[in-house]
Amino acid sequence: MVLLDGKKTSEDLKIEIAKAVTKLKSEGKKTPHLAAILVGSDGASMTYVNGKVKACERVGFNSTLVELPKDTTEEILLENIERLNNDDDIDGFIVQLPLPKHIDEQKVLMVINPDKDVDGFHPTNVGRMTLDLPCYLPATPFGILELLERYKVETSGKDVVVIGRSHIVGRPMSILMSQKRAAGNATVTVAHSRSKNLKEVTLKADIIVAALGIPEFLTGDMVKDGVTIIDVGITRVPDETRKRGYRLAGDVHFESVSPKSAFITPVPGGVGPMTIAMLMKNTLLACQRKS
Amino acid sequence: MVLLDGKKTSEDLKIEIAKAVTKLKSEGKKTPHLAAILVGSDGASMTYVNGKVKACERVGFNSTLVELPKDTTEEILLENIERLNNDDDIDGFIVQLPLPKHIDEQKVLMVINPDKDVDGFHPTNVGRMTLDLPCYLPATPFGILELLERYKVETSGKDVVVIGRSHIVGRPMSILMSQKRAAGNATVTVAHSRSKNLKEVTLKADIIVAALGIPEFLTGDMVKDGVTIIDVGITRVPDETRKRGYRLAGDVHFESVSPKSAFITPVPGGVGPMTIAMLMKNTLLACQRKS
Repeated sequence: MVLLDGKKTSEDLKIEIAKAVTKLKSEGKKTPHLAAILVGSDGASMTYVNGKVKACERVGFNSTLVELPKDTTEEILLENIERLNNDDDIDGFIVQLPLPKHIDEQKVLMVINPDKDVDGFHPTNVGRMTLDLPCYLPATPFGILELLERYKVETSGKDVVVIGRSHIVGRPMSILMSQKRAAGNATVTVAHSRSKNLKEVTLKADIIVAALGIPEFLTGDMVKDGVTIIDVGITRVPDETRKRGYRLAGDVHFESVSPKSAFITPVPGGVGPMTIAMLMKNTLLACQRKS
Repeated sequence: MVLLDGKKTSEDLKIEIAKAVTKLKSEGKKTPHLAAILVGSDGASMTYVNGKVKACERVGFNSTLVELPKDTTEEILLENIERLNNDDDIDGFIVQLPLPKHIDEQKVLMVINPDKDVDGFHPTNVGRMTLDLPCYLPATPFGILELLERYKVETSGKDVVVIGRSHIVGRPMSILMSQKRAAGNATVTVAHSRSKNLKEVTLKADIIVAALGIPEFLTGDMVKDGVTIIDVGITRVPDETRKRGYRLAGDVHFESVSPKSAFITPVPGGVGPMTIAMLMKNTLLACQRKS
């Protein structure tokens, strides 16, 4: 069993990105600049955004954090987006989700200039991804492809099962892995809450991407020997034996699945760290595209 | 075995659309208006375009056919598209494909205003489809969904195999049938030229969408009893016993597959006729959206 070490791989990636930034600077070119808009001060969102700002420092990007109060109107938020759309120094920006309930998330995402949409959530980017045209891939799927590629996990002609059909993970993963591309060319099945005989489906899979958000859903009896497991879930599960009162659980029951696995991502330290690294990669691409 | 009669269903649809048009007119509202651009005079393309123009007459739409010579420059074509984009009387328009080789097809499709892109080929429409947002669905997949729905073929929780990953049929079908929607909620597998053990995959399928373009590829030994078959293929196969020297073959070997099928589309008269009807439907929607 080989651990797909997202922590280490994301560090490698950040080093590569930092080198690319140094090169850009030495050539007198523009320094990549990522901005993030945070509305309100939800704990998890702040942690995520701060992680992104730190990653920018780490790779030598400029970063701008736009903090707006929780009661910001949709109008003010849209004005801020328009400002970033029009600011030539900003190569890419993200609006940290979720947004407060009085704001229409879809409307907000639609206003972001697709050329600066480094999260890859805008319909134009999603469409370009679906059509296999150059685009910003959403960070989590992009990170999974990168992990599979760097660990040389064979995907061509393999049976892949993606559990979950979310817009940000399950759907793009299923599309990308069945395209003609690196970490692609697989026979991909999308399973979800309405699927029947799920165990029958997962038992045949060479690769399983678990992205349904139910802790420890996938158990050892549901997978075949030699399977590769990508665990996208990360849930806080109450645990009194831990000082902080909880532990982080993936969608995969690691203890029973890992002995049967050829490759498996740990939680934490698997898919999670890759996501921020790929956001940096998208921002670098956005900057390079302009020069 | 029940034939999924696309010819009859498309006629029903056209009658419904014609009624909607009569209603629009009686309310003093705008008559839907579809335009088509045809570059060159390729036989098959002319046949398709003429079929679309006739369908417009049939349902009471206005139609405009823009015929450009084969050696039209990309620039001139783009100017014509811009003109249709800006013409308020045109609700939707299509550029008949394929285009002559000196013209960049993707570039041309990108220039069509997504609000008038009734073929549903623009990345913004494809992205909106992938994200399950309101959009124009591409006509062939839209027609298949409509057939399944009208014949009350159960799809929720069923195992669907889509053979083929083309941008206009296989890919959208696999996305749409796994979404939460009518004729959706299925567990969908995308198989393609790189898939191994295809027979193993198809033998388990409750519904098979064959869209790979190889005549009579799917044979009776590859399907289980009670399967539902959607045959998207249509190829001219040389046949000296026919006066015109060929016959039309689907991707499914009808003789061996139909006895095992619960539902099956014939070729011709299955998916084909639905496509033009759904283009009319999209044009009607485009017109209604504006009023």
